[in-house]
Amino acid sequence: PSLLHILPSLPRTTYIQTITTTLIPTIRTLHQHSKIHTIISLGGSCGTAIATTLMREALPIGFPKVMVSTMASGDVQPYVQETDITMMYSVVDVAGMNGILERVLRNAAAAGEGMARAYFQGCVEGGEEGDGDADGGEGGGGGKKRIGITMFGVTTPGVTRIREFLEDHYRGQSNEESAAAAAASGGDGCEVYVFHATGAGGKAMERLIRETHLDAVVDLTTSEIVDEIVGGVLSAGSTRLSAAAEKGIPQVVSLGACDMINFGTPETVPERFAGRRIYEHNPTVTIVRTDEEESRRVGRFIADKLKQAIRPDKVVVLIPEGGLSMMDVPGQQFHDPQANEALFDTLEKELQNTGITVTRHPRDVNHPEFAQAVGTTLIKLLDGS
Amino acid sequence: PSLLHILPSLPRTTYIQTITTTLIPTIRTLHQHSKIHTIISLGGSCGTAIATTLMREALPIGFPKVMVSTMASGDVQPYVQETDITMMYSVVDVAGMNGILERVLRNAAAAGEGMARAYFQGCVEGGEEGDGDADGGEGGGGGKKRIGITMFGVTTPGVTRIREFLEDHYRGQSNEESAAAAAASGGDGCEVYVFHATGAGGKAMERLIRETHLDAVVDLTTSEIVDEIVGGVLSAGSTRLSAAAEKGIPQVVSLGACDMINFGTPETVPERFAGRRIYEHNPTVTIVRTDEEESRRVGRFIADKLKQAIRPDKVVVLIPEGGLSMMDVPGQQFHDPQANEALFDTLEKELQNTGITVTRHPRDVNHPEFAQAVGTTLIKLLDGS
Repeated sequence: PSLLHILPSLPRTTYIQTITTTLIPTIRTLHQHSKIHTIISLGGSCGTAIATTLMREALPIGFPKVMVSTMASGDVQPYVQETDITMMYSVVDVAGMNGILERVLRNAAAAGEGMARAYFQGCVEGGEEGDGDADGGEGGGGGKKRIGITMFGVTTPGVTRIREFLEDHYRGQSNEESAAAAAASGGDGCEVYVFHATGAGGKAMERLIRETHLDAVVDLTTSEIVDEIVGGVLSAGSTRLSAAAEKGIPQVVSLGACDMINFGTPETVPERFAGRRIYEHNPTVTIVRTDEEESRRVGRFIADKLKQAIRPDKVVVLIPEGGLSMMDVPGQQFHDPQANEALFDTLEKELQNTGITVTRHPRDVNHPEFAQAVGTTLIKLLDGS
Repeated sequence: PSLLHILPSLPRTTYIQTITTTLIPTIRTLHQHSKIHTIISLGGSCGTAIATTLMREALPIGFPKVMVSTMASGDVQPYVQETDITMMYSVVDVAGMNGILERVLRNAAAAGEGMARAYFQGCVEGGEEGDGDADGGEGGGGGKKRIGITMFGVTTPGVTRIREFLEDHYRGQSNEESAAAAAASGGDGCEVYVFHATGAGGKAMERLIRETHLDAVVDLTTSEIVDEIVGGVLSAGSTRLSAAAEKGIPQVVSLGACDMINFGTPETVPERFAGRRIYEHNPTVTIVRTDEEESRRVGRFIADKLKQAIRPDKVVVLIPEGGLSMMDVPGQQFHDPQANEALFDTLEKELQNTGITVTRHPRDVNHPEFAQAVGTTLIKLLDGS
């Protein structure tokens, strides 16, 4: 019996899986042969799950994607994840035509058409292959090194300092070259991509590394790993920290915000954390201090991922002994050198004799001197490549 | 001192309020004079809050709205609410330009431009006023009566039956006119707008009534009121059930899903409901049975809103004595005639001598006979108008 005959009888999860696994190769092929320049879909909860899976799995970031959905005025994270899927709320149910749905669909069609035109033009200008420049990939950014940095509220000062340091000090393949020459050639220096470590952000960085949109990484804020391991709400999944290792690009890894597990409203903090230091950042964000045992597990996760690096000589772990976040410095609620020591110690032991450098720095993650150390380290890794 | 000098020193909430209240009239005027044909913005959490407030408050549904945001891969309900704001995830932080942000912004600009073209064309075709047909309003839908219905999973069979009944039986201003004549004239009959009673859906219906996109309402599923009053997660706010009363359009109001309070995962059900009947609909939806006292409060809320009706003769409350949802029928988990009686009794007492008709029907909300009663009642209200 053909697939179309089996489909209606399948349970919902299998139904969705069958459709998506069947269609992903088809859409990939259409895209690779430049046969399509936008994807647009319309659905309720089931249709949205199917269509956005296809968009995420079959198409790169930058390719126009429009999803008209009854689910688009709610939590769209499961649908959008780390991608640039454009979500348009249908306002009314997608069942039978009426004046409002007509207006929404007219807008969606017009948006898709506008994006397809622009994308097609980008393909034409990007060369004969069609999808070359439009989807980015190697050599984008006009010759500039493309550097990803992970950030969180409590590591923002550090990220800003590192970004400024890199923009001021990175000059291209060789540090000998003068700033003026770099500016004149127009292709040197770097551009920095900041990712919020909220789950989607970490996933986005991992994906962009795989899609060769990034040349190097300052993974300053690895807190999504804590949420993945301990059960917080801002996990980026179990493959976090693996893309840069697999691609062998230079990376400086640190431990920003690894002092905290993230939850929503206070009531959503699981019972097992009673007695722990808990801080209400705002009405919808409550954070819990990690303990020694959790810190050791986080350390092992990080070490396991980094050990997979195809270029261990391009990986440096920089430990901010002075504190992992704005909350983890003397006088602040989450200051806990003992828990941190468990994390540091685990990393050092696990990464011994792996070719990966692990260095302790006396300052906290937001300190100007730490930022300078991170920046200098990354530039060395880049210049040596 | 000018506003621009004061702004930076304001606390965040006041800052947002000051900007939005200042700009809403400006944007409204631009729209009313057909000076703008799309709105597009870009921001992080603060910028998204400001821009989407402007889009929601100053512009009608149907007017193209694009929001590029760092917040668009998460819960966008606070931003989109009941409107058709198109959300595009920026993937990277909106801070400094880079190759990915360039791609996302190119897509957003192209989408906005495409929608503006289509909207402008709609304005031109819609007549000299410019924003006439494009934004809908009176007399849209090609002369068909536009009827809104509120639905929930547990009232879907009822809504489907009512929709089919109305589509089959409503023939226009006079029931005397034959179906053939109505079809030939092309302008009669009705079109039905289904709204999911998930908070955004109820808000959308209220808004579309105010924007004169709907001519009549079957408010079958008033469960958002329970969540507003008792503290569930699917509230549509405190103004639910007020738009139709204010506009004086015909409405048949019922009590679909008023047997349940909605929550997320089981852990999110507040402590005070321990001992109540609780049902896990799926891993992320847990529902709690309303009790007598809550039912009375829901009844009072409904009565208070309906009493404001400028045309009480156009309001009929139809009580489904047989049950409020698929869960509230004999043999099902939420069957509780005693709690329901508190609701029915409150409504009857509160609405005595108000000119509003309250009628009990022996069947449950999803029963074919109840659907027929609802449909017949609405058609009578429409034909009498």
